[in-house]
This record gives sequence, C-alpha cells and structure tokens, in this order.
Amino acid sequence: MVNAGNMNGSGNLMDFLDEPFPDVGTYEDFHTIDWLREKSRDTDRHRKITNKSKESIWEFIKSLLDAWSGWVVMLLIGLLAGTLAGVIDLAVDWMTDLKEGVCLSAFWYSHEQCCWTSNETTFEDRDKCPQWQKWSELLVNQSEGASAYILNYFLYILWALLFAFLAVSLVRVFAPYACGSGIPEIKTILSGFIIRGYLGKWTLLIKTVTLVLVVSSGLSLGKEGPLVHVACCCGNFFSSLFSKYSKNEGKRREVLSAAAAAGVSVAFGAPIGGVLFSLEEVSYYFPLKTLWRSFFAALVAAFTLRSINPFGNSRLVLFYVEYHTPWYMAELFPFILLGVFGGLWGTLFIRCNIAWCRRRKTTRLGKYPVLEVIAVTAITAIIAYPNPYTRRSTSELISELFNDCGALESSQLCDYINDPNMTRPVDDIPDRPAGIGVYMAMWQLALALVFKIIITIFTFGMKIPSGLFIPSMAVGAIAGRIVGIGVEQLAYHHHDWIIFRNWCRPGADCVTPGLYAMVGAAACLGGVTRMTVSLVVIMFELTGGLEYIVPLMAAAVTSKWVADAFGKEGIYEAHIHLNGYPFLDVKDEFTHRTLATDVMRPRRGEAPLSVLTQDSMTVEDVETLIKETDYNGFPVVVSKDSERLIGFAQRRELILAIKNARQRQDGVVSNSIVYFTEEPPELPANSPHPLKLRRILNLSPFTVTDHTPMETVVDIFRKLGLRQCLVTRSGRLLGIITKKDVLRHMAQMANQDPESIMFN
Amino acid sequence: MVNAGNMNGSGNLMDFLDEPFPDVGTYEDFHTIDWLREKSRDTDRHRKITNKSKESIWEFIKSLLDAWSGWVVMLLIGLLAGTLAGVIDLAVDWMTDLKEGVCLSAFWYSHEQCCWTSNETTFEDRDKCPQWQKWSELLVNQSEGASAYILNYFLYILWALLFAFLAVSLVRVFAPYACGSGIPEIKTILSGFIIRGYLGKWTLLIKTVTLVLVVSSGLSLGKEGPLVHVACCCGNFFSSLFSKYSKNEGKRREVLSAAAAAGVSVAFGAPIGGVLFSLEEVSYYFPLKTLWRSFFAALVAAFTLRSINPFGNSRLVLFYVEYHTPWYMAELFPFILLGVFGGLWGTLFIRCNIAWCRRRKTTRLGKYPVLEVIAVTAITAIIAYPNPYTRRSTSELISELFNDCGALESSQLCDYINDPNMTRPVDDIPDRPAGIGVYMAMWQLALALVFKIIITIFTFGMKIPSGLFIPSMAVGAIAGRIVGIGVEQLAYHHHDWIIFRNWCRPGADCVTPGLYAMVGAAACLGGVTRMTVSLVVIMFELTGGLEYIVPLMAAAVTSKWVADAFGKEGIYEAHIHLNGYPFLDVKDEFTHRTLATDVMRPRRGEAPLSVLTQDSMTVEDVETLIKETDYNGFPVVVSKDSERLIGFAQRRELILAIKNARQRQDGVVSNSIVYFTEEPPELPANSPHPLKLRRILNLSPFTVTDHTPMETVVDIFRKLGLRQCLVTRSGRLLGIITKKDVLRHMAQMANQDPESIMFN
Repeated sequence: MVNAGNMNGSGNLMDFLDEPFPDVGTYEDFHTIDWLREKSRDTDRHRKITNKSKESIWEFIKSLLDAWSGWVVMLLIGLLAGTLAGVIDLAVDWMTDLKEGVCLSAFWYSHEQCCWTSNETTFEDRDKCPQWQKWSELLVNQSEGASAYILNYFLYILWALLFAFLAVSLVRVFAPYACGSGIPEIKTILSGFIIRGYLGKWTLLIKTVTLVLVVSSGLSLGKEGPLVHVACCCGNFFSSLFSKYSKNEGKRREVLSAAAAAGVSVAFGAPIGGVLFSLEEVSYYFPLKTLWRSFFAALVAAFTLRSINPFGNSRLVLFYVEYHTPWYMAELFPFILLGVFGGLWGTLFIRCNIAWCRRRKTTRLGKYPVLEVIAVTAITAIIAYPNPYTRRSTSELISELFNDCGALESSQLCDYINDPNMTRPVDDIPDRPAGIGVYMAMWQLALALVFKIIITIFTFGMKIPSGLFIPSMAVGAIAGRIVGIGVEQLAYHHHDWIIFRNWCRPGADCVTPGLYAMVGAAACLGGVTRMTVSLVVIMFELTGGLEYIVPLMAAAVTSKWVADAFGKEGIYEAHIHLNGYPFLDVKDEFTHRTLATDVMRPRRGEAPLSVLTQDSMTVEDVETLIKETDYNGFPVVVSKDSERLIGFAQRRELILAIKNARQRQDGVVSNSIVYFTEEPPELPANSPHPLKLRRILNLSPFTVTDHTPMETVVDIFRKLGLRQCLVTRSGRLLGIITKKDVLRHMAQMANQDPESIMFN
Repeated sequence: MVNAGNMNGSGNLMDFLDEPFPDVGTYEDFHTIDWLREKSRDTDRHRKITNKSKESIWEFIKSLLDAWSGWVVMLLIGLLAGTLAGVIDLAVDWMTDLKEGVCLSAFWYSHEQCCWTSNETTFEDRDKCPQWQKWSELLVNQSEGASAYILNYFLYILWALLFAFLAVSLVRVFAPYACGSGIPEIKTILSGFIIRGYLGKWTLLIKTVTLVLVVSSGLSLGKEGPLVHVACCCGNFFSSLFSKYSKNEGKRREVLSAAAAAGVSVAFGAPIGGVLFSLEEVSYYFPLKTLWRSFFAALVAAFTLRSINPFGNSRLVLFYVEYHTPWYMAELFPFILLGVFGGLWGTLFIRCNIAWCRRRKTTRLGKYPVLEVIAVTAITAIIAYPNPYTRRSTSELISELFNDCGALESSQLCDYINDPNMTRPVDDIPDRPAGIGVYMAMWQLALALVFKIIITIFTFGMKIPSGLFIPSMAVGAIAGRIVGIGVEQLAYHHHDWIIFRNWCRPGADCVTPGLYAMVGAAACLGGVTRMTVSLVVIMFELTGGLEYIVPLMAAAVTSKWVADAFGKEGIYEAHIHLNGYPFLDVKDEFTHRTLATDVMRPRRGEAPLSVLTQDSMTVEDVETLIKETDYNGFPVVVSKDSERLIGFAQRRELILAIKNARQRQDGVVSNSIVYFTEEPPELPANSPHPLKLRRILNLSPFTVTDHTPMETVVDIFRKLGLRQCLVTRSGRLLGIITKKDVLRHMAQMANQDPESIMFN
C-alpha cells in the first residue's frame, strides 16, 4: 500500500548523488513559492522525525523539541516585539519632549518623567516643575515673551529637521526596505512572494531607530503600521534560528502571520484585535493552529509591553477611555454622518496619495527623497508649532480628544461654564454651556483638521517609516469631537426640540463628545484601510465595554460602504497595485465568463509551448532549451507528437542536476539522452551513457481542462497557492497558466493596463 | 474572448427544452455538495443580475435588494435567535422554580420575580416573601419538618419526571432530529453534507420547547449547545425566504455559519467569542465576508437578548464576575493543575460517553429511549434534591462558584470568620479563616462533583436536547472552587512559607477562590471540546478584563495538551465518527506516504471503471449502466480504447435528461446514440435521431495524476470542497476517488475499521 517513491521533497537526487545540493528547494528573489510543495516538504520532514524518534531517547527528545519549537518561537517573538515597542514608546516620548526643552535633573527624562520626581504634587503644577526647562529658559533665561517664543519655535523646527534628516539618511544608506508602513509588502510576502532582505536584521534595526526619529520629528505619521513590520522582522529572525521554519517558506509564513498579530497587539494593546487584524487584513494562509499561536504571541507581546509600562499608567491600551453615559438612539444619526465623512476621507486620501506616489515614481521628484523629507518636515513643523493641537504628538492629541471631560480636567476642551450650584458626584457632570476655551479649541481643531488632511497625503509614501493608523484616527477624532461638541451644545440650548426632549433634560449628562471622537476615528480608519471586524474589536478593546460597539459598528459599516462605492481598494491594496506586486487578493471576486483556454500560454499564433520529452532529448537539447527561454519550468510529455503529459520539471533543478551530473557522473556528455522514465530507453549500441532525471520530475503537476471557467482557476490558485497550472484537453497538453498570467488576465478584465501591474 | 458556453450552472438543458427541470442542481438527502459548482452557480446568478440591472430602474432596485438580502437575513436571524434565547431563559427560570413552589400573586412568576413585587425589601428576606409558597406550604400548610420535606422532595421528582417525559415524547413523535446538542451534525452539514429536516421548522419549534423542559427538569445538561442548533434552524428558515440562499447550498452554509455565531453569542452573551467559535469549531468554509456578517448577527442577537433582559440585571453575559484582586505568579501552579484536571476529565468523559453511546446503539438499550430518559431523570432528581448545590439549576451553581465573596454575601460558601476589627472598604476583604459553613460546603461540593461527573456521562446522548458546556463548566467550577478555598486557607494559615511570604501577608486579600472556579471551568470545557481561542475569548468577555487572560490561557493550553495526549478527538468529532458522518476534518493532519493510485477505484482485480463514451453508446446502454450501478456520476471518455477523459456527467442529471428527452423530444428511442461532442457523430442512414447531452457534461472535471501523494489529494478535497476527483496517468483515465474513498482511506491508515465509520 505504501509506495516507496516520494516525488515532492528536496534532496531527491540520490540517483547519482550522495548528498542533495545545497540550493535545491529554495526560491529565487522576487519569485512566488509553491504552497503545496512547501506543505509536502514539511510533512516529509515531520514523517522523518517521527520515524526517527522511535529509535533512541535522544531522537525522541529531539522530536519533542521540534514539536515545541513553534511555541518557543512565538514566545521569543512576543518578548522581543513587546520590548521593542516599549523601547520605541519611551524613546519617542523623550525625543518628542526634547524638541521643546530638557530635564535638568537627568537629561534622559521626558517632561512627564522629569516632573514625577519633582516635589510639586498639586495637580495643576505637575506640568510646570522647575527641573523641566524650555530651551529658551535654559539658553537665554526667558520663559515668556516674543523672543523666547521665536527661539523655541526655531529650535523646535531645527530638532524636527535633524531627526527627519537622520532618519531618511539612515534608511537610504543602510536599509532601503525600512521605508513605508510595510504592510503592503508583508501582505505580498505572506501570500507567497519572496523579497529577500525585506524582513532582515538590518531592516529591523534601522526601522526601529528611524521609526523613533520620524515619530519624534512631529511628521504626520504613526508608529502602528511600522510596528507590524518590526514584529514581522522579529518573526523572521527567530524563525531563521529553527530549521523547521528557516528551511520551509510555507512554515515561515505561519510564523510571520503570528508576528503581525503581535505587532498590532503592542501597537494598540489589543491582543484579540491583533489576531483578527492578522486574519482579516494581512494573512493569506491562516490555519487554525496559527490562530492559537498568534493569540499566544499577541498576549506575550502585550504583557511584555505592560511590564515595561511606557505610558506610566499600568494600562495595556494606547488610548484608555472610560465614559459614564450611555448613548441614545437619536445619536446614531450623527454617528452615521461621521461614517460618511470617514468613507469620503478614505476615498480622498487613497486617490490623492496614490496620484502623488505615482507622480513621485514617474517624475524627477523621486530622485530627491532626502530633500522631499526635509521639505515636508519643515512645512509640518512650521505650521504645526503655533497650533497647540498639532504641536503635541498625534497620539496625545487623540487621547485628549477621546477623553470625557471630568470635573478636574484642566484642558481647554473642557472649559465649560460650570453651574455653581452643582453638587453631583465627580463623574456625573451634566451638559453645560461651552466657555470661551471650547470655542477657541473648536477653531484650532478645525485648522488642525485641514492641515492634517493635506499634510498626511504628502507624508505617507516618503522614504521613511510611516504608518497611517494614527494620522487617520486623528483626522476622524478631530472631526468627531467637533461634531460631538456641536451636538452637545445644540442639545443643551434646544432641549425642548422633539429629538432631544426624550433623552436630554436640563441637568442631564446626555452627550459625550469623546465618544464622537472615537466613532469618528474608527470611521476614518475604516475608510482608509477597509478593516471591519478587527477595527471594531480593536476599538472594543480600547473601551472595554460592549456598550459602545453599536455606534462603532454603524460608523465602520457606513464608512466602508461609502468608500467602497468609490473604489473597492483599501490603501494597502492600492499600494500593492502601485508597486506591481503579484498579489492575488482573497477578497476580489472574479466574475467574468472567461475560460482557461483564453488565458493560457501559448496564445494562438505564438510559438508552441516549450516542452521536454520523456526519453528522446539529449543533454545538449535540454541545455539549449534552458538557455533560449526563461521559463521557471518545463512540462514533460511522452513525445512531441502525442503530447500526453507525464510531469513537470523545475528550471532551477534541471540546471543543478545537469551541472552536477556533468561534474560527477561518468559518461554523461552533451550527446547523452536525458530520460524521465523509470527504465532507460532502448538505445543503439555505442551511444553515451544516458542521464536519468526522474527524481527531479514532479509527477503530480496540477492540471485543469481548457474548458474550466477562469473563476474556478482563480479559486484554485488562491486556495492551493499554486505557481503554475497546466492546461489539457482530453489528456493532451495544450498550454500553461502561471500566477502572473492570472493576475494579468484579472487586470485586463478590470480594464487596467496589464503590464503596469507587474512587479517592477 | 468571452466564451459562450457555460458548463456549470443548472438549467443548461436548453438544447431540447425551454425551461430547466425543477430538480436539476439540487442534491439528494445524505449526499455531499460540490462547493466549486455551488460557487460557480452563484457567480452565474450574480452576473445575470448585474447585467439585468442595467436594463431598467426596477431591475436595478431588485439588484440592490439582492445585494442587501444578506444583511437582512443576518438581522432577522439575530432578532429571532435573541428573542428565542430570552424566551427560553424566562421559561426555564419559571419552570425550574415550579418544581419547588408557586407564586400566589401570579403563577407565571418565577421565585425571583414573585419576590420583586413583594414589599420585603431587606436583603435577607428577599428570598422569603409571603407570595412565594413552597408546595408543602400550599398543599398541607407546612413549611418545615420532615413530612413537608418529603412532600417537597416527592413533588420535585414528580415535576422533573413530567418535564422529562414530555420532552422525550415530543422529540420522538414530532422531531427526532431535535435530540442531542446538534453541534456534530451542524459541523457535518456546514462541511457540505445534506441532512434534510435537520434544520427544519419542526426541529426549531420542538427543540425550543423541549429544551425548556429538559433544562427545567434538572437533568445534568445545558442549553448552550442546543441554542446553536436553534440559531442554525432560524438561519435555515430565513435563508429559505431568499432565493439567493435557498437555491444555493453553498451560500446557505455561509448563513448557517453566521447563525452558529449568533447562537453562541446569546448562549454566553459573548458576541466576539461566538464569531470565533463559529470560525474555530463549527465552520468549514468561512470567507471574510461571512466573518463580518457573523459579527453583525452575533451583535444583533446579543442586543436583542439584552433588551429582553431575562436575568433582570441589564447584563449581557451569563455569568458576570468582577474580581478585586490581581493574581500572582505562584498561583500559576494550581491553575496548571486545574488544567491537568480538565484534560483528564475531558478524556474520561469522551471515552466513557462514547463507550456508553456505542452500547446504546448496538444493544437493546437503544430501543427504550423514553424509559432511559425517565430512569436517568429519576436518579438525577433523587440524588440532586438533598444537596443544595445540585438542587438549584446548574447555571446558578456556576454563577455562585464564580463569585468573589463580598461583605454582604449570605451564601454558605462565604461563611468566613470575620475579624471584628475590620474597617476596610467593602470590596477589599482580606483572607480570613474559613467558618463551619465553608467546610460544610466543601463536603457538599465534593459530593456534587462526583455526582455530576458520573451522571453527565450517561445524560449526554439521550434522545433529548442536551448541551455539554454547562455541565462541563460546572465540574470544572466545583473542582476549581475546592482548590481555590484550599489554597486560600493554606495561604492564610501558613503565610510564612516561602511561596506565600512575598505576596500574601496577613490581612491581605491574596487568593480569590472564584477565579479558581473560573479557571477550572475553562479547563474542563477545553478538555471536552478542545476549543482554544474561542474559549479564552468567551471567558474574557465574561470577565471583561485582560487581567485574567493569562491564568485562563495557561489552564486551557494545559488542558488541551493533556487531553490531546490521550486522543486527538474532541467530543464533537468523536460523535461525528460514532455516527459515521462523512466529515473531513480540517484539523486532522494526514501524514502517510500513500499515493492517489493506492486509494482510487477500481482497485487491482476489480471490474473496470464504469465510463460513458463520447459518441458510441445508445440510450439503452446508458440506461443499463445507470440501472446496474449506483455511482453518483460517470466519467466520459473519447472511446473505451483510448480512455482519454473529456468530462464528467452526474447520474441525477443523466436520468432527468433521458427521461425528459424520451417524453418530449421526437425520435429519441432506445437505439438512439447518445453523444457529448459538439457535432453529432456520423451515423449510418436510417439510424434513429441521436441525443445530444453536451449541456449536462461537466467539461472541467477535477483530475490528479496517479502519483499525486494522498496528503495533497486530501488537501485538495478539503480546500476546494470536492465530491470526487478523477485519476489519470499520462492523460489516460485510470480511476476515481470520491470523498468517501478518502475518508475510508484515512480511517484505514489510522487503524480503524473503515466500514464502521461510514454514514449509517
């Protein structure tokens, strides 16, 4: 019953060699892996270890270690990703404050840390401790006045430029792959594409350092997307330590999926949201075992981050919020409006950003990346400084916008006119008329909104690490807070209107502007990325209550629908297309009525398919064929006349096998017949020794008939992760369809230029 | 470019008929669907609607309605599932209390509701209001004393027997499919199997009613598993209202996956956990679109349930818990011990339960299901009544065990000796020595544990609706609480031991026995069902804090590992195997080195494969072949000599096509040649009119070569959802592999009797 032959693994050249060649079974750069083959190879490996484990105790222990290595890798990824996230948070905190001043007691303290150790314990003075000095105080001993302001302004811009220049130079010199958010590339890699060095150690190091620099420089970008890239680099690093993962590109991708989950987990402090993000947005092949391990990695990462405690509040989450009021049905209307805004913002952003990035790629603009970064940083710093809402770091801004106004709040946004008769407990403050501070804040926020919208379009895609989550959320949070305050004041001043009468009596706390900010943030993030479940779950983990899930869902759904109406692609898919990565999206539905015969090569009028015959070509014939074509492999047929398919041989393995045979096997010359059958063909006397290559022949190539609808072919390519597929009609080989043919055909059907989308 | 022929849809018999036959495209009972074909049919349908929508505004509106119908179905499922769950909860509450007494002011009030309206407002007296009368008070006017006790005992048993008898009779007479938890069958159905009536309206009605009866009867079973079945019945009902879902078995299964999520969502009040449960445990084909819709259905269901508010506390979750103390590293040791216990319990339960169910199937025992239910109910009631922890409903028991002891707690479990000098706030109570009540409770809990373990084995699998979640959790919660109290007392009396010294000073609140109960419940549930992520997420949604996720994960992982060491199957897989459903588990890894040629039919020595030829068989030949075999379809080859495959014809469609042609098409007689080619074959003069059947020919049958490793074949069957696959060698048809062949082979490789596992 058990057949001795094994057609799949590497190292099957035992016909004429003792050891396998070192390179068999690996892939070249910018090529696509064959998932079925990788899976098969892993099963072989597993089988070997299981068989061996019965031989001795030592082998048994080794097999146990092998079985556990997956969990060890997850633990290590979680620990390192959590640590790096903590270090990045601390460094960003310190360097952001460095733009404004320095701590005298210890220069490595951020503003907040500096004043923790101070003796001023009253709440108002915590921000103004003597140890913390603004640059103007330190340099010219002035803390107020126009000249101090200008000096501080100037130094702020200078620091920002210095950070940005350092970042872009480091990226250019050491690790060009460290730029961008990395998520489009990670999606492509997880779908089976090889980009060597993209997840390398240098990228990890440079991306971590430059991420700190660019976030501190005050540019309109976030660290969340790049953190996913950083976590994936950690995953790649640790998987290279275990041969189980380093030697199998399929298994390695399972680890990377889990690492992506750990990345989001530390970015937001949302482990479940991270796992769902990896499942929904990033991953391609996500077996259940990976789900469980991702969850483990995400949790370890989250707890590592918490024990580092970079926010100093023992909280796991980036924006901790606690609201005291429920929401009311009538509020769904503004929430849905925010959803529409989010969808429109998503569409606008994607269109403008892609247009700008295309211009950068095709014009001279792309040749001066350093200059571009310097210019954008300068503009950002110059415009951002005068406005208190853009001067501070974006995550602080979001945090403030999400907050509900408590009684002790000193923020300008909470400058309401208090009722002197108020005797309520602290967390149940009724709606109040807005004070002058709130109106001021509204104007400043409106300016900040316009500024953020415009500058983010130009920032995302420069040659520095840049994430989109935080700027998108900031845009939404600003819009949401403005709408929220508007609704609140409307309800306060017109509580006799029908819509307010039922739920907003005078003296009641009926509108929470912070909730509007949160809903707006979710809507804008959803419009840009088209995340759905993971978005809502991340937001749910931030608030920690099911109460607010309905507003969040309403906004997320509306935003997705509005944005989808203008174009199905999220920002990551748009960038994948822009860069021409061969990515077969699981979400795209192929609904055209074409057949395999319309897509396969060769087309009518083209040269016939290059094939090998099973026992009639010489070594020289094969070498000529290899030299004249650049295909990745060749179908093997019985004879050129019958064209009945017997298997498929990889180009790479053919080259290696012939090279090795010529070097080491006696009697193999250019005239030797190459045969793929079990038995050598009958040759005339005096003919040179034939060369048997059956072991590199894949005897189970994937075939479809020429009448197979392309939607089925696309489905097969997606689900089985094929590289190519042979097309037959009544048993005769007609042609071949590769993954690139499929992508090209899909682009053609969608009226895109097929050549523009290929990897370049 | 676009080819006119369409080889996949139904309704393609236009060659000789105007309208399609009514039955084409449907499947027979106990057959497996072809996922690829269903998907293709849906794409066709979608394409038609899109094309039509450009014709008129009415068609455009219809296309919009069609696109929205998915969301409408989800909304309806959520509403109905939530309502049913609420009604079941209320009815169970009332009927459970009916066993003990009745409310005089309104007999339809449960004990709790009865005393809400009472004037006694002090906390202690809430349970003893005058309107609520025990049966003994009502009938013989005695509330205390031996005779009252015996009367109450007797009536308790009588009510239980009545409920159980009613339930089993209803199930037997009206809906035999309503028994069991339903999850094994739903898993099988979602994997593509057809069991007509399993999700029908009668099953829905009877299962809802009998579920109330059996839970109220006090049997050791829960309502959570059956609620998933009930929700799936709702899903099936609503999908039959929309032709998009009712006519496509693949699309229908997407709705059912979402309905399963809604079921768990209302069972535990855990919408995210429900979605993950559906994803991890139940579903087979789970595209991302379904993820989002499942989430929507789960949320609607949860909010519907909350607005019904059956627990009277505005809480969404079944067991709401709030702990005030963190856990300490050293506590991981008892948590892991609980994990081991959970794994052992899982193994024990699965082994014993399967052995008992097998005995029931094979011996005379199975012939008296009513008697069996009556006997088990009688035993349960007789043993349960004297012990206060088994007398109350299991979910109340779990709720009490999970609870942290507050200052106002009147439960026996919280009978600690108070320090009279205590001046702490209410929620921060230090560890105290246990009082006599706690020791009593420990004994009673130990007895309850033994009783629950034994009786659950015999209860699960009887001919009544029965869920496993609650009894499993009860076993774990009891064990956990006992361990928790043990650790607490150990820490109190020996706080100078090294392990306690660091975290458990006198006067500190260091051990929370309720947390141990929760960890134990998770471990036992994990051991039985082998859920991982969804289990932890459900528990996380119960507690609402990430704090306790590490203990839960540690216990869940340990429990799964321990249980897996004794056997990989969870209880649902075990029952699927027991019943012989053709279920190809995604989690099973096939690692044997067999090839397609070892599995395909015909085997060596068997009669050759039954095939049709493309243009040389008469109608009579085909009819004879159909009569003599019972295969579901036949490959069509060029000729018997060349055996080159051109397509595959379904038995069902062949029969229908020939029957219709004989009735309606002139000149078709037994001697007519049947042809599958485009052009009719050249026939001698005078031969009868030939019959063209190309339109029922599937021109893209799935093929693999004979050398394909079986692991690849299994993978293809799983991922593409095939029914059968043809085996070729160099273009020649060799044999066929069906899904059952694959399952039989897998059983053989696992050393099981292959015939025992087939559906019977």
